[in-house]
Amino acid sequence: MNDKINLAAKLALLENPYEPGIVGFLNDYKLQVVKVKGPFVWHKHDETDDFFLVISGRLTIHLRDRDIELEPGEIFVVPRGVEHCPEAQEETEVLLVEPRETVNTGDASGPMTAEPRLL
Amino acid sequence: MNDKINLAAKLALLENPYEPGIVGFLNDYKLQVVKVKGPFVWHKHDETDDFFLVISGRLTIHLRDRDIELEPGEIFVVPRGVEHCPEAQEETEVLLVEPRETVNTGDASGPMTAEPRLL
Repeated sequence: MNDKINLAAKLALLENPYEPGIVGFLNDYKLQVVKVKGPFVWHKHDETDDFFLVISGRLTIHLRDRDIELEPGEIFVVPRGVEHCPEAQEETEVLLVEPRETVNTGDASGPMTAEPRLL
Repeated sequence: MNDKINLAAKLALLENPYEPGIVGFLNDYKLQVVKVKGPFVWHKHDETDDFFLVISGRLTIHLRDRDIELEPGEIFVVPRGVEHCPEAQEETEVLLVEPRETVNTGDASGPMTAEPRLL
């Protein structure tokens, strides 16, 4: 993890949606790429904000009171404690930045909870 | 800062190289965009790693023992304490993620030190 990170090359290593891979670290944060397709689960992170940057495709982040629509080159930071549910109609590629110990499904857990893995 | 962030739109607000603008926050980190052209100054951050993601153009991050060449969609995280000097031949657009209190010139200070400003 002492070299540059090519996001497209790392994303090409992912086979399935919602199985993120760690591509680097920034202090006590992890940098992850993930493919999104279909709906995720409603969840929140009480201990951290949640950073999304769309690399390709189109991402909807449903909030309880509105939807955030993200295209490539757009970021949304979900504030801590705010319920959200990511969803994509077409396969969408995303960069995530969050504290190392953050669990993808937050308070929801369940079958979409992913184990940390390095790409 | 409660809406999505379009990086291209924010970058269009920057007039001069090496004058970063804050576009959002992630916990106690700031998200900044900056235009790079020409050489910056050699410096290091003893208290933090330093995240660079190239949005457009081409960025060289000189290290004392090698150069890192970044194209759009590529990230490099300079480890804390490591001397580095960013440089770009053509105007290059970059996303930076670093703790809120981080000073752009690190231990070097000098005329290229930028005051924090919100875009």
